[in-house]
Amino acid sequence: MAVRQNLFRTISSIFQRHGAVTIDTPVFELSEILSGKYGEDSKLIYDLADQGGEQCSLRYDLTVPFARYLAMQGKKEAQQIKRYQIAKVYRRDQPVMTKGRLREFFQCDFDIAGNYDPMIPDAEVLKILSDTLDAVQVPFYIKLNHRKLLDGLFQVCGVEQTQIRSISSAIDKLDKLPWEQVRREMTEEKGLSEVVADRIGQYVLKRDEHILDILEKDEFLMGNEEARQGIADIKLLLEYLDLFGVKDRVRLDLSLARGLDYYTGIIYEAIQTEVEGIGSIAAGGRYDNLVGMFSGTNKRGQPKTIPCVGISVGVERLFSLLMARQDVEKIKSNATQVYVISAGDGLLKERMRLVCELWDAGIKASFMFKNKPKLEKQWNVCEKEQIPFAVIIGKDELDNKQVRIKDMRQKSNQGGGVVVERKEMIDVLKNKLT
Amino acid sequence: MAVRQNLFRTISSIFQRHGAVTIDTPVFELSEILSGKYGEDSKLIYDLADQGGEQCSLRYDLTVPFARYLAMQGKKEAQQIKRYQIAKVYRRDQPVMTKGRLREFFQCDFDIAGNYDPMIPDAEVLKILSDTLDAVQVPFYIKLNHRKLLDGLFQVCGVEQTQIRSISSAIDKLDKLPWEQVRREMTEEKGLSEVVADRIGQYVLKRDEHILDILEKDEFLMGNEEARQGIADIKLLLEYLDLFGVKDRVRLDLSLARGLDYYTGIIYEAIQTEVEGIGSIAAGGRYDNLVGMFSGTNKRGQPKTIPCVGISVGVERLFSLLMARQDVEKIKSNATQVYVISAGDGLLKERMRLVCELWDAGIKASFMFKNKPKLEKQWNVCEKEQIPFAVIIGKDELDNKQVRIKDMRQKSNQGGGVVVERKEMIDVLKNKLT
Repeated sequence: MAVRQNLFRTISSIFQRHGAVTIDTPVFELSEILSGKYGEDSKLIYDLADQGGEQCSLRYDLTVPFARYLAMQGKKEAQQIKRYQIAKVYRRDQPVMTKGRLREFFQCDFDIAGNYDPMIPDAEVLKILSDTLDAVQVPFYIKLNHRKLLDGLFQVCGVEQTQIRSISSAIDKLDKLPWEQVRREMTEEKGLSEVVADRIGQYVLKRDEHILDILEKDEFLMGNEEARQGIADIKLLLEYLDLFGVKDRVRLDLSLARGLDYYTGIIYEAIQTEVEGIGSIAAGGRYDNLVGMFSGTNKRGQPKTIPCVGISVGVERLFSLLMARQDVEKIKSNATQVYVISAGDGLLKERMRLVCELWDAGIKASFMFKNKPKLEKQWNVCEKEQIPFAVIIGKDELDNKQVRIKDMRQKSNQGGGVVVERKEMIDVLKNKLT
Repeated sequence: MAVRQNLFRTISSIFQRHGAVTIDTPVFELSEILSGKYGEDSKLIYDLADQGGEQCSLRYDLTVPFARYLAMQGKKEAQQIKRYQIAKVYRRDQPVMTKGRLREFFQCDFDIAGNYDPMIPDAEVLKILSDTLDAVQVPFYIKLNHRKLLDGLFQVCGVEQTQIRSISSAIDKLDKLPWEQVRREMTEEKGLSEVVADRIGQYVLKRDEHILDILEKDEFLMGNEEARQGIADIKLLLEYLDLFGVKDRVRLDLSLARGLDYYTGIIYEAIQTEVEGIGSIAAGGRYDNLVGMFSGTNKRGQPKTIPCVGISVGVERLFSLLMARQDVEKIKSNATQVYVISAGDGLLKERMRLVCELWDAGIKASFMFKNKPKLEKQWNVCEKEQIPFAVIIGKDELDNKQVRIKDMRQKSNQGGGVVVERKEMIDVLKNKLT
């Protein structure tokens, strides 16, 4: 928890640096809010038992509840928001501890909602993603693609409109499966012709630094309006990312498709390169129509939607990376700064008076809940809990209105510590603690 | 959320001052873990639907999951713990927003588990309770009682052993109902004789500063072993509370019974006196047998229990009190310190470069996501979001490699702010911000 809280603090502070507020949504939503948003994964949603009243389900991610929240906002100004949320989500999946795949886990989302000029908030989200991963010192790069570019590409290759989502989710598997297998899924399972599949392959398998230039010279592709829009967005985004100093973090990758139904523009996925086996560590994109699914229509019958772009950081995976780096035994789990020790015959009341004085001065202090604790056991607590200072009282110290203060981190022979006047104890400790 | 997070920070910092670590338990538990722990309130537990696998329920409080967690700890040292947890609990109750009664709400628990000498951890818990309520400046007093004293009292008054829990929960209603009504519940509904009811009344209705002395001289009561033990505990506790400087916060109140089944020793409830209608604002007690319900038995067939004492702070009620004190419009909800404003013709890229420089220096900054934002709209954001500083660029500033910095909190006529060399901007702002 010490490591986890530290991670949450780091991430929150970056989100706050960008002006984000946090909101809190309930752990369960009406089941109908969640249905039809997660494609094949809908079967992983946890439902509450029917005990009367509304049918509810545990949230599957933080994006859909955020969109539902936005749709419920009456005031115009509440619909322009930078918000972050660090909270648990629930998936009735087969847990794999080693991969950080759990049934209950934290997500850490940052989103920008509102009608703005193109690609400006998108660029800020990617800047935030970069800063976040830099802050936890995880090496990474960001795969970037655009739903419209992908849709246009599928169209010019000859994919039927009705097949686009299904072919898209096959392509998305290219980070885990070889092309042959994905090709077989598209042709044999999903009935795509081999010619069309191979045309797609020519695009999505291309690995080239200058891929954007190549695509722009591709008259075949640029004849498609959606593809042109996607390319224009990407070019503008890269210009802004350059201003934000993170352009070199990004690689255009036509094989990135993202499974979820609701993305409509830029999509991205951060890949960490520290450890094998854990690939994607954050992902997101633009979803301009999701809020409209909850907010009804305006007078002209159009959905009252709010454009959104955001990122979800896989904190459980980051957490696994951070834990793998540390010696768990050496993590100090509590904040205690001073342990009050009796070197005499118990001295419970004297210890209680003393520890209370420390608390009231704002010093984090503890003592042993025993009438007559053994000296050795008290030392052991200091060591085990890595408490930096001990305040020691014995009969002599009491008689002379003094205490001993010992720096427990110094292994050198400092004997029983330094003797300090009781009335100066707080000042001396505060000095040592800063 | 700004107020709420501030409250959580305040409370956590006090818990940490006392050496507590935090743990995280899942939002759902096996249903069997929760059953039989909450008396009549068990009907308020939310169950998950049966979708295959274990039958689970949402947690009803944080105490039972904590006890379950303790019981699962194999290592002896993990069974001695000071832990706090701030997390949501779930009750299928009729919500009353004005009273802060919700179906999903935060609880904020601090507990000390472990085998210690009598009343020392109990005293620390009450010290923490006092410090917490002092920190949020809520006026309060603490009602104190002891389950054993209460049981002894019922015994000497003539209550059958089998009736004790049921009579106890009737008595617990005395803070909301008049004696006549409680008496009727005991006699007419629960079959207690009128003589016995009136004997009980003589004790539980007594309001006297010196009630402890009176009870100690009561030979009738002191003839009961349990009552004697309860009195001895209370006397020792008061001695320790005196050392901790919080004895005067506590009032012995024989009508305090606490509904939950699992308390075994000292029980208490903090009553705030700021606002009518919201009474109890924190409550807790000692529960020495709860862990034993989950941990099985030792070689001699005795339950392997771990004595515990703790407090649950009603943060939702504290939150209501805090919100009632403030002008919600005046709460700054984001942390943004600087707003980057264009006084010229859009200057989007120049603003982006500038805001990025601020972020990279750790300054919390924002700008308007528009190519050509109107000056007035940018001022409006500063005002609405209470952003203390604006950094303004126009054509002149750009040409001269300068910026204008304006303190937005000064209503006096400071014109367009002060002109600063661009390369000194960060230093000047950091100075102003500290």
